[in-house]
Amino acid sequence: MVSYILSHQAYLKIFFHAAKHPHLRVNGVLLGKLDPASQNVLIEDVIPLLHHWTSLSAMMSIGLNLAQGYAESVNLALVGYYQASDRVDDTALAPVGEKVVSELREQFKEAIAFVIDGDKLGSGEPALIPYLPWASTSSWRPYNLNPPAFSIGSSISLANPASPSQAIALVRDAQRHYKFGDFDDHLEDVTIDWLRNQAYKRNYRKVPESASTLIMTITHAAAFNGTFIHSPRLGVVDILRDYLLAINHTVVDDRGLISHFSPANSCTSLQLLQESNIFPTIIPDGSFVLPTFCDLHLHAPQFLYQGTGLHLPLMQWLDEYGYRSEERIDADPLLARKVYKRLAQRLIEAGTGAVLLFGTIKKETNIILAEEMQNAGIRAFVGKLSMDISSRPSYVESSSEDSLASAQKFVAECRNLVSQFPPHRRLVEPVITPRFIPTCSNDLLSGLGALSEKESLRIQSHLAEAHEAVEWVKQERGIEDFDAFESSKLHTNRTIQAHCTFLNQTALSGLAKRGTAVAHCPLSNSYFSERQFPLREALSEGVKIGLGSDIAGGYSVDIMDSMRKAVITSRLREGARKLDPNSLLINDTSDKPMQTSLAIDWVEALHLATRGGAHALGLPQTGVFEVGAAFDAQYIKLYDDTTGAGVGALDFFDSPLGSGITLQILEKWWCIGDVRNRTGVWIQGEKLT
Amino acid sequence: MVSYILSHQAYLKIFFHAAKHPHLRVNGVLLGKLDPASQNVLIEDVIPLLHHWTSLSAMMSIGLNLAQGYAESVNLALVGYYQASDRVDDTALAPVGEKVVSELREQFKEAIAFVIDGDKLGSGEPALIPYLPWASTSSWRPYNLNPPAFSIGSSISLANPASPSQAIALVRDAQRHYKFGDFDDHLEDVTIDWLRNQAYKRNYRKVPESASTLIMTITHAAAFNGTFIHSPRLGVVDILRDYLLAINHTVVDDRGLISHFSPANSCTSLQLLQESNIFPTIIPDGSFVLPTFCDLHLHAPQFLYQGTGLHLPLMQWLDEYGYRSEERIDADPLLARKVYKRLAQRLIEAGTGAVLLFGTIKKETNIILAEEMQNAGIRAFVGKLSMDISSRPSYVESSSEDSLASAQKFVAECRNLVSQFPPHRRLVEPVITPRFIPTCSNDLLSGLGALSEKESLRIQSHLAEAHEAVEWVKQERGIEDFDAFESSKLHTNRTIQAHCTFLNQTALSGLAKRGTAVAHCPLSNSYFSERQFPLREALSEGVKIGLGSDIAGGYSVDIMDSMRKAVITSRLREGARKLDPNSLLINDTSDKPMQTSLAIDWVEALHLATRGGAHALGLPQTGVFEVGAAFDAQYIKLYDDTTGAGVGALDFFDSPLGSGITLQILEKWWCIGDVRNRTGVWIQGEKLT
Repeated sequence: MVSYILSHQAYLKIFFHAAKHPHLRVNGVLLGKLDPASQNVLIEDVIPLLHHWTSLSAMMSIGLNLAQGYAESVNLALVGYYQASDRVDDTALAPVGEKVVSELREQFKEAIAFVIDGDKLGSGEPALIPYLPWASTSSWRPYNLNPPAFSIGSSISLANPASPSQAIALVRDAQRHYKFGDFDDHLEDVTIDWLRNQAYKRNYRKVPESASTLIMTITHAAAFNGTFIHSPRLGVVDILRDYLLAINHTVVDDRGLISHFSPANSCTSLQLLQESNIFPTIIPDGSFVLPTFCDLHLHAPQFLYQGTGLHLPLMQWLDEYGYRSEERIDADPLLARKVYKRLAQRLIEAGTGAVLLFGTIKKETNIILAEEMQNAGIRAFVGKLSMDISSRPSYVESSSEDSLASAQKFVAECRNLVSQFPPHRRLVEPVITPRFIPTCSNDLLSGLGALSEKESLRIQSHLAEAHEAVEWVKQERGIEDFDAFESSKLHTNRTIQAHCTFLNQTALSGLAKRGTAVAHCPLSNSYFSERQFPLREALSEGVKIGLGSDIAGGYSVDIMDSMRKAVITSRLREGARKLDPNSLLINDTSDKPMQTSLAIDWVEALHLATRGGAHALGLPQTGVFEVGAAFDAQYIKLYDDTTGAGVGALDFFDSPLGSGITLQILEKWWCIGDVRNRTGVWIQGEKLT
Repeated sequence: MVSYILSHQAYLKIFFHAAKHPHLRVNGVLLGKLDPASQNVLIEDVIPLLHHWTSLSAMMSIGLNLAQGYAESVNLALVGYYQASDRVDDTALAPVGEKVVSELREQFKEAIAFVIDGDKLGSGEPALIPYLPWASTSSWRPYNLNPPAFSIGSSISLANPASPSQAIALVRDAQRHYKFGDFDDHLEDVTIDWLRNQAYKRNYRKVPESASTLIMTITHAAAFNGTFIHSPRLGVVDILRDYLLAINHTVVDDRGLISHFSPANSCTSLQLLQESNIFPTIIPDGSFVLPTFCDLHLHAPQFLYQGTGLHLPLMQWLDEYGYRSEERIDADPLLARKVYKRLAQRLIEAGTGAVLLFGTIKKETNIILAEEMQNAGIRAFVGKLSMDISSRPSYVESSSEDSLASAQKFVAECRNLVSQFPPHRRLVEPVITPRFIPTCSNDLLSGLGALSEKESLRIQSHLAEAHEAVEWVKQERGIEDFDAFESSKLHTNRTIQAHCTFLNQTALSGLAKRGTAVAHCPLSNSYFSERQFPLREALSEGVKIGLGSDIAGGYSVDIMDSMRKAVITSRLREGARKLDPNSLLINDTSDKPMQTSLAIDWVEALHLATRGGAHALGLPQTGVFEVGAAFDAQYIKLYDDTTGAGVGALDFFDSPLGSGITLQILEKWWCIGDVRNRTGVWIQGEKLT
């Protein structure tokens, strides 16, 4: 006989359906397919039908009919039936169940039925009794071969042996079954998506109201098989086809690290598949998995005024929208939570998995920011602003001492916030954040430098952004922007400086020597900097560089937009240099122009957005797929694997089917892809969307 | 009693339902609302239920239930019931109908029923018999008050008196009823959207197989009430709230011109509403209507390779992708049709209503391009390429005579293609298109100049795009690009030149004097021109300017992308000038720098994308809302009018409800809006999406 493997999702859904209506009769159908090679029936999903059935009603026929249509649309078949009785001890397959599954058998001859075993529901054992047809009769009997169902070596098994215990935890601790709906529910409320039922997956990473327990949630397959794309080095993009990637993502080890990564037909991959109970998610032709993006510069409170007032000069914009947003958010915790929650959603939607944030001056508001990022499940480096000088009397810290004390308290509270979690689930970290030189006294700067050193904290600020700011510092302090940071010990290998458009070659080389990284923000620079960042020169010096959205001096949260603008800006610089080789010289020690083109291409931009950003943020374990790296990834769909039709803005007139994802196809996505191509995001092995 | 007004859409749907199943019993429900001011019941839509009902079945209950849910989701109520019998002469309201409508009456006390009058279905008269409850009994009787239903002064009327005749035409000539499906159909095929049923609206503008008849189709309300936004002059954006706009869009006059445009509470508006049978579509808070965009430069065949190979230098890109796409498309009419059809869809999706196209050298392929644009319903100016010199031996016309003869034939055939339509429905026009100077002999250039003059044809080409091209012309012909066009009489007030990045002040002034327009393509220029177009200088000279996507040297078809890049490029130029006032001087007659900023803002960009482009294209009757202008418009939704929630990428943390669309909100859309905000596009009064 064939074997049956029930996926994690399918088990959870059956369990939730029964748990939601403990005293009613529930039923539904199983979706899956017969794998011709292994002769396994893979039960991938279920569709719940009713929760108060008695006999075969018109309603059930209609539900079955719609379920059938849905199954076909996702290339699956109806491969079986499940039910629960209204009494715990009744485990008989009801006549109506026999009738339904017998009919399904006419289409799919290996059809199977499961009856929920009420006695085992809370036990952590698989709570299902399989029924198969009895010889040539039309009657169905419980499966009674040896070894018994769900024991080692049985032909009826779970893809994930931890499904029963996880199902219990999800119901008990997270009431996930209330987010689950069947056809009956749908008839009451058409917004309930009974066919897909994905809502139960949401709202995982909540910081618990009572911080006493960490809910362990495992939401999906722990392995993938298909195309992976990453850029391990500048100028390189690897398209790795038919790879197997597995993740530590079980109840005993949920670190979310990549535990296996090699071609699917390699010996180690085959061995893994044979020895473990892994049931990999297949990434179909036309889709691929890519590391998430890093955003190295984003003013979280300014998201309130995204895309507003950008015709104003920088200082006026800051006063009317920048500072104003910060002041409003510091004054209104509810508004802060609303803006930060939405920001986190938008970042995930855009595929950003790690973000370096400027917050506000008030400690409490930055804790809200940290909470919302931790809850959303993305890596966030949260900077409480330090500024003891300001042009806006209502928005400044009262003294350098107060400012330092507040920074220190924020660091402690932010760390405390996540101390309840195991180290790999601590996604937020505090960052030392002198706003920029003009708003910080020398005392504050050196105090922050010392604090960062003592506590091994990352540092961020703005460096040499605009002509006016650079001149201001020179006039006020008689030194360059750059030197003010240097003398306060703020240029470390934990530092990320935004912009750096006005740095010369010596300064770039200084950054490289210190290991200080640059957040390149081409969109906001084109608005507010008279000069553009010497990207190629900085790369040649070996400076660590990633991209930043600079919300809300920049209007787009999407790092794909930053990539495109980085290429454009660099091409404009190269164009200008071609017309006049001396026009863009930033080299103050030699007058030889660079040999390399100043332009970067899309492949280089993709590196900056992923691995480059990860390096700049001091996250060497992300931005790349390799064993030991965290599984921080986005799932991108470019075309349908059956029709070859492009997704979102993409059109393919030469069918991509068969050829798989090529550099050309990838470039098209780079140029015109958008959020519609992104169907999933994971951080540390956990799925966020 | 209250009055009942049945919308055009509702009448069509009932008619289609009956026409699709002439020998079956069909039924459905009416969706609408009671307007508290006028006490009119506005029947806006219908949902078809079954086409083989007998008694009140479970299926009908479920269908009613789902219809109810849908109605609520669109803020409408179930306000009645309709049915047709299986016999033409049976016009009784069946007991099941009485039962359903009596139940509806419990929720909506003015519920009404209609029975289809089979005798009148083909007559052009309204084929509906209204039933209302008989006094206080539960029995329903045909409406028998005077004046009779649907006659002048009756309290039961059609919003559009032409609905019956148009319904007949749509069924008879366009078989539109086959695109219509009810709940029964949905149960057979879940992809049928029985609740909304919008599919029947599609495929209007088809050039008929037999060109003998033009199908007159009227698809929607001929008036709108709400917010209109346009930019009649550079630097000005008018937000016109609560305006009434009416369109010539009836059977007798379907010119699609704006016949009325003034504040809704003005005397003329009130008079119009009173005297005519207009039932305006309300544009809710959060949505507005804007003129469609103009795209002044797009290589249609290169859409095949959109977003491909853009790291290559221009000449290599042209050879590997540009020329190759043209050659492939000229060799393969099926591919041509596929690419051009999709391009038209993408343009409409992006809100582009008028487009100036470069085609290929083969006449027949350009006719396909013209057909597809006419069929899609957008204004297209189609340029068959003229080129008798080429670096690619396989892609060139054999002589200047052949090239001229082919251009002439194309002009005649393209004009002939649309001669079957009345003048206002001729949406495509041929354009004289010397590819660029390096590919055209002097004979060809002067021949094309003469042809354009004789036939009053528009002209397009590339002018002074890149350093290499400009130098090439100088070396080969000893003159500037600009002068080669001048001496061939190709610079006219019907000419649109792409790029113009290398023009100096004198040349810009020359363009202004001739009335020659510029297609500014900031994205492709940033890739392929060393210098950027001196936009502000050209505007100051009075040159007509619009924006171009330059597919596929540019990768985005979206003119919103061009607007954003135009602002960025201009700001970069202004930034560079601030650092070095002489760096960007293009003034060869004086050394005084301009006083004005070289940067444009989003409001100026919006003008270039709409009214500016229309002027450049010689379409003075578009790009603005005023009486006599063509209704070429896009419908943009920024937020939900009940919740204030942003649509697409837009977030509003300060509720926009009540304040309506402000400049700030509009700017946010300009920065981050996308296709998700666009819910409709009209050209010449006809709805395309």
